[in-house]
Amino acid sequence: MPKNVFWKNDSYFVLDQLLLPHQTIYIECRTPEDVEAAIKNMNLRGAPLIGAAASAGTALYFRGNTPPDYSFDEMISKLLSTRPTAVNLRNVLDESKKLYMQNCTKNRNELFTIFRNFSEQVHARDAVRCAKMGEIGAGFVKERIYKGKKLKILTHCNAGALATCGSGTALSVIRALNRLNLVEKVWVDETRPYLQGARLTAFEMLCEGIHHEIITDNTAGWLMHENEVDFIIIGADRVAANGDLANKIGSYSLSVLANFHKIPFISAMPLETFDLSIPDGKSIVIEKRSDSELLSLNGIRIAHERCRGLHLGFDVVPAELLFALVTENGVVSDGISADKITQLFK
Amino acid sequence: MPKNVFWKNDSYFVLDQLLLPHQTIYIECRTPEDVEAAIKNMNLRGAPLIGAAASAGTALYFRGNTPPDYSFDEMISKLLSTRPTAVNLRNVLDESKKLYMQNCTKNRNELFTIFRNFSEQVHARDAVRCAKMGEIGAGFVKERIYKGKKLKILTHCNAGALATCGSGTALSVIRALNRLNLVEKVWVDETRPYLQGARLTAFEMLCEGIHHEIITDNTAGWLMHENEVDFIIIGADRVAANGDLANKIGSYSLSVLANFHKIPFISAMPLETFDLSIPDGKSIVIEKRSDSELLSLNGIRIAHERCRGLHLGFDVVPAELLFALVTENGVVSDGISADKITQLFK
Repeated sequence: MPKNVFWKNDSYFVLDQLLLPHQTIYIECRTPEDVEAAIKNMNLRGAPLIGAAASAGTALYFRGNTPPDYSFDEMISKLLSTRPTAVNLRNVLDESKKLYMQNCTKNRNELFTIFRNFSEQVHARDAVRCAKMGEIGAGFVKERIYKGKKLKILTHCNAGALATCGSGTALSVIRALNRLNLVEKVWVDETRPYLQGARLTAFEMLCEGIHHEIITDNTAGWLMHENEVDFIIIGADRVAANGDLANKIGSYSLSVLANFHKIPFISAMPLETFDLSIPDGKSIVIEKRSDSELLSLNGIRIAHERCRGLHLGFDVVPAELLFALVTENGVVSDGISADKITQLFK
Repeated sequence: MPKNVFWKNDSYFVLDQLLLPHQTIYIECRTPEDVEAAIKNMNLRGAPLIGAAASAGTALYFRGNTPPDYSFDEMISKLLSTRPTAVNLRNVLDESKKLYMQNCTKNRNELFTIFRNFSEQVHARDAVRCAKMGEIGAGFVKERIYKGKKLKILTHCNAGALATCGSGTALSVIRALNRLNLVEKVWVDETRPYLQGARLTAFEMLCEGIHHEIITDNTAGWLMHENEVDFIIIGADRVAANGDLANKIGSYSLSVLANFHKIPFISAMPLETFDLSIPDGKSIVIEKRSDSELLSLNGIRIAHERCRGLHLGFDVVPAELLFALVTENGVVSDGISADKITQLFK
């Protein structure tokens, strides 16, 4: 697996995930704008990784001797506006603001060191969280879902190493289950329109040697009907106080289908992905993106030029359709509630 | 709208739907093998159109003075084996066999005329059926679903003019509703992997001037949640005696999602699409196609070369999740049963 982001020579390098799995090309980010563009264009994606990249963008504000012609706060605002749904971005930028308040009297050189160290920490702590989520989630699945027969698991989008700074969220749980030799197969939803499943998750499974098959998103329901899915696990981009969560478009449909077929539906995320300031999913802003990302592929138009499309990036899974939330600090299950979620933060 | 098939100078011309909506190129079929290839490669598709094309393939067996080096029965078997799920193919070929039995003493020239006439009839009668289905279906929707507010309709795959010899099955109903000025918008599922929705249905809606938007298949559930769908209408490839029906992969998921959101789910098809010889959907053979059709698009590989996929062409919607079946001979609704379906054939 190629590393998805890294610091080198005061630059932040971002693997261009739009070119995966065919090309491994890095974008060198020297300024906050470079990071902004990489997030906006989805060269990198995944809630935890977006948060980590934002910490790097903040550090790059202090790179070199010449200050940019915009303020620190303006830079923060611009980074924040790149993607509206994933909350990790806002949480990391809030930390950056606090760090700046504590150090604003220092010179640019010192600030660069402070912020670059902070960025390295953000990346490192995310890797630790991923590992913990994997162990905790695998333990939970082994206890509550595994019945002596290897598991057929369905996942959507990419909640893997490529979406985080470690082994992933949902895919970290799958990796840990695989180390326990409990995985028969992973069904990988291709995840239109960006095909993160077909391009990224399948690639991760291939690198890890985990048996998998790619399916169109519209095949998942039929596989559930045919008893080909033991449980579903996805990541999350923002979790409200009551457990409602935003994730890649299609997650909502999967949760309804899982509920109909009585298949456990699990989501894994770090605590950083919670937004306790909103009571439920109704307050989550769903990103609407250009329909060209839907109506063309590899630069080739699919639909007639005069046809239009609706491209929503996310939808919201209601807490009542979730079997469990897996975090680095434990699992919430058997009826997800604001009270139980609050306990995770203690 | 370009014509999808036609007879000219003893050849049968097939619009290559794989190139739509960008190119309008016809394949000239001079032999049964040419028709076989066009069906197998999905240059043409749609249960009624496949049936009609098979009648043309049969006629081409008698074209020219030199008989092919295989028997009439072998030709029928080869045509039958092109696609396993749609039953119209078998039904039309059964008619062809009877016609041959009645005329087998005639010479090749006479047989060509007889079979070409039969083929023209098959095409013409399908157009009539489509028109009837449209009127009957629109009347039913107006009476049972329309509540004074223009309708938002969701459809999957292409059950339109391009799938039939007339105005379509599901899309004929939408066209008739639009003539009554009852349509606000059609949500067009793009329908992976072949993108018949994005390429074909959206193109038909564009030609017809019906307001529509293309969505990824995984967006449909969320639109139902957001009250953006008043009813769903699809076609069918084979209907069992109890009303279970096979249709494009993803139809099953839509039926479960519609049921969860209490949204009427309708399927429209000619009586030719019924297979009363099978009691229910369990007996329907689901076509498994090459995963290359899923893992590449426009000749460009999406997934890593070493990744594999599962490409099922169809799934089965259980009768209990259907609100209504619309045929050229009337509607079955309010609990679909074998008894009610039998009445359609009287």
